[in-house]
Amino acid sequence: MDILVVGSIALDTVETPHRSVRDAAGGSALYFSTAASFFNPVNVVAVVGQDFDFKRIDFFKKRKINTDGIYVAQGETFRWGGKYYSNFNQRDTLYTHLNVFENFKPIIPAAYRRSKYIFLANIDPQLQLDVLRQIKEPRLVVLDTMNFWISRKREILLQVIKKSDILILNDEEVRQLTNLDQLIPAGRKILKLGPRYLVIKKGEHGAILLGPDSYFAAPAYPVERVVDPTGAGDSFAGGFVGYLAKSRKMDEVTLRKAVIFGSTVASFNVEDFSFKRLQNLSHSELMSRIRRFKTITTF
Amino acid sequence: MDILVVGSIALDTVETPHRSVRDAAGGSALYFSTAASFFNPVNVVAVVGQDFDFKRIDFFKKRKINTDGIYVAQGETFRWGGKYYSNFNQRDTLYTHLNVFENFKPIIPAAYRRSKYIFLANIDPQLQLDVLRQIKEPRLVVLDTMNFWISRKREILLQVIKKSDILILNDEEVRQLTNLDQLIPAGRKILKLGPRYLVIKKGEHGAILLGPDSYFAAPAYPVERVVDPTGAGDSFAGGFVGYLAKSRKMDEVTLRKAVIFGSTVASFNVEDFSFKRLQNLSHSELMSRIRRFKTITTF
Repeated sequence: MDILVVGSIALDTVETPHRSVRDAAGGSALYFSTAASFFNPVNVVAVVGQDFDFKRIDFFKKRKINTDGIYVAQGETFRWGGKYYSNFNQRDTLYTHLNVFENFKPIIPAAYRRSKYIFLANIDPQLQLDVLRQIKEPRLVVLDTMNFWISRKREILLQVIKKSDILILNDEEVRQLTNLDQLIPAGRKILKLGPRYLVIKKGEHGAILLGPDSYFAAPAYPVERVVDPTGAGDSFAGGFVGYLAKSRKMDEVTLRKAVIFGSTVASFNVEDFSFKRLQNLSHSELMSRIRRFKTITTF
Repeated sequence: MDILVVGSIALDTVETPHRSVRDAAGGSALYFSTAASFFNPVNVVAVVGQDFDFKRIDFFKKRKINTDGIYVAQGETFRWGGKYYSNFNQRDTLYTHLNVFENFKPIIPAAYRRSKYIFLANIDPQLQLDVLRQIKEPRLVVLDTMNFWISRKREILLQVIKKSDILILNDEEVRQLTNLDQLIPAGRKILKLGPRYLVIKKGEHGAILLGPDSYFAAPAYPVERVVDPTGAGDSFAGGFVGYLAKSRKMDEVTLRKAVIFGSTVASFNVEDFSFKRLQNLSHSELMSRIRRFKTITTF
């Protein structure tokens, strides 16, 4: 059963304390698809400008990522520039040129409309609603968003949240959405908005899965050397949704494993710029890190 | 085999977003002893002023905490004032009146000198060295410190670190001590300074145990409502050292369990001001939370 992701494709310029990269392929749709394709076929809906070089995602063909839903619009591809500081917990956005992404109106190709696992990456919640209206019978809707939409389009965002099964947020967004300081009561409040589960991403501190009667806390995989955290959240989501789609189950045990797979895929992603590390990641490397994840959390 | 703690006794005035408390009993020695006494007898060395009311620690008698090493000096007890903000991750020190603590020269009573498990709480590293010289044959030396000593007395602190078996630091202190941004390489560098193990405390994000060939990550126990985080670090240390002393073992499995016991004791401590919650904590409450710790981390 196919996965559908609707999100952005960007050309990212990233500065870190040690190295930098210019116009690297990025954006939520590409990070997510690359990660999810380890587990399951993926259908991508996104927009690029005429300047986008499709050779950058040539490897998608081998990975069962369907790019028929990537539209080429008049103009330039979305560009983002960011700068990370010493311990990578802080990031400044240097510029955001939406370009063709500004007028993005996602149209889901007929062949995609029966996709069962839907990932609504961080875009305008109005567009996320439009996407859901075009999907026949989703089995699972996973939603991402950001501080900008929480403050600017709260009402419409609440409508999308109500229609979602799993919401993925970082800890700041959880606090912002609920106006509560303490994470656990805040998470509980979010579950009352509609989703069955909430995943709270905490970067280098791991992730929390909160359900109606359950709580699961996973540390981050201990990465020896972080090169570029860009795309960590979307590759987490890719591993998470990919594993769920492959398992075809939604019980607590499967969801917990999905969090571990998501965290593990993300841990590889941050070891290089763009999705370079995920591009050449082998199945045995992935599984070896999953096994080690168990040993570092067992007591 | 007895535990010895050398640290501070303070009267803390704490402001939080919801409630405040004035001149509550606190300080590393009291938090540590209260926590460790769940597992093992404790000998305390500290100093108070003539204004300190020993009725505050009347319950120590029932808990096998020996207070013969608490000296009453001319003057007032150490006072600290602090203010926490919305999510408790930020804290401002409003004042620090060292008072009698300024001239504290720990003398270890003869009856304490054969204590086997030594916790050197956060005090001047020169005094920590003096304490170690007075101990006969310690079986385990666990060391705490803070940013102030790392910047002001680095050389002497490095000497104490060299003589310690386990160093307990928070993540900022790990980075400060090593001048490294990334936590794992920084932790490795610290192990080269002498200690066999390093515990990295990350507050609401849990703790990491780093050994010569091992890595263990534990989340924080999900506390529903934090009232006052003061003393969390020292009650963690108390649970940690207490469990090790009770177990009389130092293998990897025991150390990991000690981290979980430390985290659990600390999770109770933050639920009320001072050590009120630890004072009336029952063994069955503690063990029930330990069991739940397993369920929230298993996948």
